[in-house]
Amino acid sequence: MKLSVSKRSEQIVLSEIRSMSIECDKVNGINLAQGVCDLEIHLLTLLRSKTVSFNKLFFYKKKSLFMLTFVGLGLYDEEDLTLKGLEAIRNADVIYAEFYTSPLGGKTIEAMERMYGKRIFVLERSDIEETAEGGILKLAKHQKVVLLSGGDAMIATTHLDLRLRAIDMGIETKIVHAPSISSAVAGLSGLQNYKFGKSITVSPAYKDVISEVPYETIIANRARGLHTLLYLDISMSIAEALKLLEAVEVNKNGNELKQTILVGIARAGSDNPVVKADYMNVLNSYEFGALPHVLIVPGNLHFMEKEALIKIAHAPEDM
Amino acid sequence: MKLSVSKRSEQIVLSEIRSMSIECDKVNGINLAQGVCDLEIHLLTLLRSKTVSFNKLFFYKKKSLFMLTFVGLGLYDEEDLTLKGLEAIRNADVIYAEFYTSPLGGKTIEAMERMYGKRIFVLERSDIEETAEGGILKLAKHQKVVLLSGGDAMIATTHLDLRLRAIDMGIETKIVHAPSISSAVAGLSGLQNYKFGKSITVSPAYKDVISEVPYETIIANRARGLHTLLYLDISMSIAEALKLLEAVEVNKNGNELKQTILVGIARAGSDNPVVKADYMNVLNSYEFGALPHVLIVPGNLHFMEKEALIKIAHAPEDM
Repeated sequence: MKLSVSKRSEQIVLSEIRSMSIECDKVNGINLAQGVCDLEIHLLTLLRSKTVSFNKLFFYKKKSLFMLTFVGLGLYDEEDLTLKGLEAIRNADVIYAEFYTSPLGGKTIEAMERMYGKRIFVLERSDIEETAEGGILKLAKHQKVVLLSGGDAMIATTHLDLRLRAIDMGIETKIVHAPSISSAVAGLSGLQNYKFGKSITVSPAYKDVISEVPYETIIANRARGLHTLLYLDISMSIAEALKLLEAVEVNKNGNELKQTILVGIARAGSDNPVVKADYMNVLNSYEFGALPHVLIVPGNLHFMEKEALIKIAHAPEDM
Repeated sequence: MKLSVSKRSEQIVLSEIRSMSIECDKVNGINLAQGVCDLEIHLLTLLRSKTVSFNKLFFYKKKSLFMLTFVGLGLYDEEDLTLKGLEAIRNADVIYAEFYTSPLGGKTIEAMERMYGKRIFVLERSDIEETAEGGILKLAKHQKVVLLSGGDAMIATTHLDLRLRAIDMGIETKIVHAPSISSAVAGLSGLQNYKFGKSITVSPAYKDVISEVPYETIIANRARGLHTLLYLDISMSIAEALKLLEAVEVNKNGNELKQTILVGIARAGSDNPVVKADYMNVLNSYEFGALPHVLIVPGNLHFMEKEALIKIAHAPEDM
C-alpha cells in the first residue's frame, strides 16, 4: 500500500539526510556505500508508509541513539538469536554481518533476511580490520549500525578491537548476547560447566608445522582434573583435529590422549546435534556429519558425568 | 469469539485425554495437577477455536512428539531467550520454570506469560529433585513439557540429573540453548574468552566457615596466567564476595588478590550493565546496583585486554 507524500514531508526527510553529512561516494567499499543509499531509501519508505510519524524521523538526529550494536547470532540457524537481538536488528538503520570468525552453520543470508525483514551486508575481514574507520565506524557515527556474528557477541579479538576503535571515535557501543558453544557443550555432553579449564583452538598445520599448544593445554588442564574444550578451525572436522593431536602425542612419546575417552560434538544448537564419546581410534572414523564440529577432552569424571557420557553420548559402558 | 462444538468432536477430544491416562488427582503437587487440568482446558479451547484441525489434535498421541525440552531463558529479562526457545514454549503443552539455580533478574512470571502467551508454573527444588517421577517426568511421558531456567539450559547439575532420569523413563529430551554469563563476561569486560581457567562459585559462610576453594582456584588459575570467573551465590553482592575472599587471603597471609585489578559486573544482558575494574579497596564500596553480580579475577593481561579494562571498565590508567 503506497500513500502519497507531501512536498513538505519530503523536504524534511531530505534535510535530515543532508544533516548526516554522509555522501555515498566518500564511503569506502561497495557494501558500505550501498548501506548509505539503502538508508536514504529506508527514510523515504518510512515516510511513505502508513505508520510513519515525525517523532520516528527525529531519532536520526538524536546522537545518543546512534551506535554500534554487536548482536550475536547464536549457535546454528537463523532462529538462534534472542528476541532482543531481533529487536536490535529491526530498529537498526544498517545491518552488517561477518562470517570469518565463526561459520554460517545452518543459516543462509537469504533465510536471515527473510526472517528478520532486513537487508544484510556481509563484510570481509579487511572491512573490519583495515578500512573500518572509513566504513562501518564512519556510518555508526550517524546511524544505528548492527554487526552480526555467529555465537555470542564480542568473543573474537577482532570484535574487541573494533569496539575499542569505536569508543575512540566517540561511538556508543552495545552488546546483545547469544548462545555460545562454550556453555552449550556442557549441556549437550553432560560434562559440568565449572570443571572446564582453559579452552584452545586447533588450527591447521602451517608450513607442515603442527602447533603443540592445544596438546599442552589438554595436559595442563588434566593435571588439575579439568576438561578441555577444543574449538576447531572454521573448516576443520573432528577427524582432522584428532589427526593433528595424535601427531603431537606420537612426537612427544605420550599416550595420555590415546587412553582417554574423548567427546565429539557436531552441529550444536541444531535439531540434530551429534554427541559421541569414545576412544580416539573409534572417534576418528565416526560419521559426525556436517560442520561445525568441536571436541572435548575430559579430565576427571564425576560419577554423574560418567553416567551422562554413557547415556547421552553413547560412550562404552566399561569406560 | 466462541464457536459451537459438535458432540462428535467433543467425544474425540475427551478420548484423547483419556488415552493419556493421566488423572489430576493422581499427580503430586498443586502446580502439576493444575498443569494437567490446564491441558484439558487447552484441548477443548483448541477445538473451540477457529483454527483447530484434527491433525492438530493427533499430535497428542504421536509418541515422538512427547518430550521434555530444557529451554534457557538467557541472561536478564524476558527478551533474552532465542526465537527457537519461544517456539518451543508456544508448541508445548505445559510450561514449568525454576528459579532456584539462577535468579529471575529483570523478569517476572507475569511479564514472561504476557510475552510468551502461555501460563508458567514455577517449581520448587523438591519438585525437581524429589518428586519429579510422579510430577514433571510423569507428564513428559504423555505431553510436550518445557522446563525454563535462567542462563543457558542444562548447566546446573540438578538439570542433568533430571535429564538422566527422563532418559531412564524413555522420555526424549531436548535442549534449547540461551546466552550464558560464562561467555557474556568476556564480551562485557573485553577479557578474552580463551584465557579463562576453571570457574567457581562463591558461597556464603556455612556455620562461620568460609570455603577456601574459590581463593585457591584463583591462585591456581593465575599461576597459569589465566582469568577466573567467580559466580556469586544467587543473593550475593560483589561487596559480600570480596569480604569473603579477603578474609581467606588474610588468613593465608597472602596479598595477591589485594594487589590485583578485579572486575565486577552487574546485570549482564540488561540495558544498563555495570562493568567496573579496580583494586579491591575501591570495588568493595563501589555502587554496582541491583543483582545479579559476578566477579572476575584477571590473570596476565594482553595489551588489548588492558586497553579494554581502561576504556570499557574504567580501570585506573596506571594499572
